Amino acid sequence: MDHVRAEIISVGDEILYGQIVDTNSQWISRELDQIGIKTVRKTTVSDSEEDILNALEQATARAQIILMTGGLGPTSDDLTKPCLAKYFNCGLALNPQALAEVQRIFDKIGHELTETNRQQAFLPTKCQHVTNRAGTAPGMWFYEDGKVYVSMPGVPHEMKIMMTEQVMPKLKTVYKMPAIYHKIVRTIGIGESWLSDKIKPWEEQLPNHIKLAYLPGLGEVRLRLTAIGENMAALKKDVQDQLDKLLPLIKPYIYGFDNDSVPKIVGDLLRKQKLTIAAAESCTGGTVAQAITSIAGSSDYFLGGVVAYHNALKESLLGVSPDTLNRHGAVSEQTVLEMAEGIKSRLGADIGIATSGIAGPGGGSPEKPVGTVWIAYADENKAVAKKLSLYKDRDINNRLTTQRVLNLVRQSLVEMDGEKV
Amino acid sequence: MDHVRAEIISVGDEILYGQIVDTNSQWISRELDQIGIKTVRKTTVSDSEEDILNALEQATARAQIILMTGGLGPTSDDLTKPCLAKYFNCGLALNPQALAEVQRIFDKIGHELTETNRQQAFLPTKCQHVTNRAGTAPGMWFYEDGKVYVSMPGVPHEMKIMMTEQVMPKLKTVYKMPAIYHKIVRTIGIGESWLSDKIKPWEEQLPNHIKLAYLPGLGEVRLRLTAIGENMAALKKDVQDQLDKLLPLIKPYIYGFDNDSVPKIVGDLLRKQKLTIAAAESCTGGTVAQAITSIAGSSDYFLGGVVAYHNALKESLLGVSPDTLNRHGAVSEQTVLEMAEGIKSRLGADIGIATSGIAGPGGGSPEKPVGTVWIAYADENKAVAKKLSLYKDRDINNRLTTQRVLNLVRQSLVEMDGEKV
Repeated sequence: MDHVRAEIISVGDEILYGQIVDTNSQWISRELDQIGIKTVRKTTVSDSEEDILNALEQATARAQIILMTGGLGPTSDDLTKPCLAKYFNCGLALNPQALAEVQRIFDKIGHELTETNRQQAFLPTKCQHVTNRAGTAPGMWFYEDGKVYVSMPGVPHEMKIMMTEQVMPKLKTVYKMPAIYHKIVRTIGIGESWLSDKIKPWEEQLPNHIKLAYLPGLGEVRLRLTAIGENMAALKKDVQDQLDKLLPLIKPYIYGFDNDSVPKIVGDLLRKQKLTIAAAESCTGGTVAQAITSIAGSSDYFLGGVVAYHNALKESLLGVSPDTLNRHGAVSEQTVLEMAEGIKSRLGADIGIATSGIAGPGGGSPEKPVGTVWIAYADENKAVAKKLSLYKDRDINNRLTTQRVLNLVRQSLVEMDGEKV
Repeated sequence: MDHVRAEIISVGDEILYGQIVDTNSQWISRELDQIGIKTVRKTTVSDSEEDILNALEQATARAQIILMTGGLGPTSDDLTKPCLAKYFNCGLALNPQALAEVQRIFDKIGHELTETNRQQAFLPTKCQHVTNRAGTAPGMWFYEDGKVYVSMPGVPHEMKIMMTEQVMPKLKTVYKMPAIYHKIVRTIGIGESWLSDKIKPWEEQLPNHIKLAYLPGLGEVRLRLTAIGENMAALKKDVQDQLDKLLPLIKPYIYGFDNDSVPKIVGDLLRKQKLTIAAAESCTGGTVAQAITSIAGSSDYFLGGVVAYHNALKESLLGVSPDTLNRHGAVSEQTVLEMAEGIKSRLGADIGIATSGIAGPGGGSPEKPVGTVWIAYADENKAVAKKLSLYKDRDINNRLTTQRVLNLVRQSLVEMDGEKV
């Protein structure tokens, strides 16, 4: 069954000039995706009649549903409404329903309805008015030559209420939608190309109604499976059948699914195994502790951490031996292992982790260039350290280091959990 | 003088399906705006040859500069490169420079170069290769019929490094831009409307070639002055003349200019006054230490920090008295003051700061609702604590708390520096 195709047109100079991020179009397309409407293009145009009309024309040629946001304010630089009247070749007339709703809002806040606001109740004669429960600019719904055009305010919460309460339900009555199901597999510690080499045969045997996409991010690659058909239950089963074949191929690299994050997964495993953790940081300077505590309820398993930025503190707070620091330096396997052991014993945690490296941009040397980082994990049975060779960017290095050291924890916890990584 | 016109094409189903927000196009258009290039349209298309070619054609008809992001991965669903080859009607050939750079990345991480990655070094023969310092997909620069086309990776940090280090400088050599001078004044501790009331008379006397924009952010409001003309020196003088009138009006709220941040300003003041600092954190869980160490060279003044998430550690690591914790609780003026004093003395720092609060979403009570946070500052002469009543969002609360406690430090240092706050 063919997809219903939608396009989203965002109107506004403030988006084009980068003064604000257009989160509306992302939110709208996700909503449409949930009910099987395929967004085939997003366009952002300036507050100019020529650009708005041109975008409408092009969208009409490609999609059945055209959703617009923005340009509905009462001021002269808001052109969406006159442009729609011109595009559909009709005049503007006072819409009693729209007027009543604007009036109600002003009564509520005890203000006189200004002429400017009264103007907002004038709508193109060919449109049906769409209630704006959170603001004074009414929405507009056009149905022309089998295509739907909806104009909504640019203010996110006004648009979201209008979309949820009225536009989505109405769209469902106009079009028959396919079922669509997404599953995201999250991997870490393997590059996109190696991943692709490993699963190519599997990828090639995927049925036509299941599509695979690689979504690379900082230090991780997500695999997105999208299944399209008539029956949601059947799609979920089809995707599960494919997952059963995929997971064994890349098991060591999979840390979670859908909206999982490494800190969240680590937290779940720690809670499940009733273990506590503590972090000793040098180069990451608090990033690791912050990532762990970004998860609500992390106080169940996170005891605390030490940021030992100066070597003296590596000795006094973590018990790293001066001899180790002198002989091997702060950025070394020996030091990071003593840091992990130190934080574990001093804080009385089951697991201690540590980071020490040269985050950059300065501070590198020929033997230890910027981006050289050591991470360590220690529990009552074992201690492991790992060397990372990262980049010149301080922030990226710290975020990657944090992700890698937490992945060390994840791998150990999965092992303890009796699964083979 | 006419603006140079640019269009941004974002390629990727994950953006169209709303699985990720396209922050790239916003970042790019802001950068272009800074140098006087006007973004006239943003388009997001799917990973489909037809859509990509169609978007290229339309952008070519409207703009002189076409910037593309995404679709450069090594996998089969990445189509930007073949589409560009087709659009410019040329073949793909191995680009030795590109190969050398990919090779270097793999050597660095000690991996064999896979065939898939080797493929990434094949580029359209008509393009100049653009270095990707943070990833394996090279960028591409085309110059055809007086128009520039640049293809960059979709991974934000790869795109940003490529754009900043190479694309922007190269664009400046191709086009003559108007002189544009931006000056940003950064304020903290005053709301947008209060600020606007204080400076309205000044705002109204601004000359036509200087525009003011309010850029509200988390816990701060930036004022951006933009001057446009032919002569940069003249513009700088005009803006300085206006600043001389503006600053006295809002001096207590100004913490810096342009790309300053509170952590950077605090760092500059600490270095100037040869003082060291240490942080004791509870609710912020490492966010404060991370903010301080996000500044390159912070090891000059930041000794370290303790994240005492559990009360036992507030006693053992920071020396908070059990009696204080029992009588007043962890989230109290008394506890946060003892934390600040404790970290200061235990780490031998000149200044100690501390945070303790209920970050949420859970853990609130009628007396201490979610968002209740205490922050403290202590040096050899004085100790101050402050209560914040923040929101329900954990991340926002931690970022605001971090900013406020560092602003406490800033205010004390400015006082010490002999200036009136």
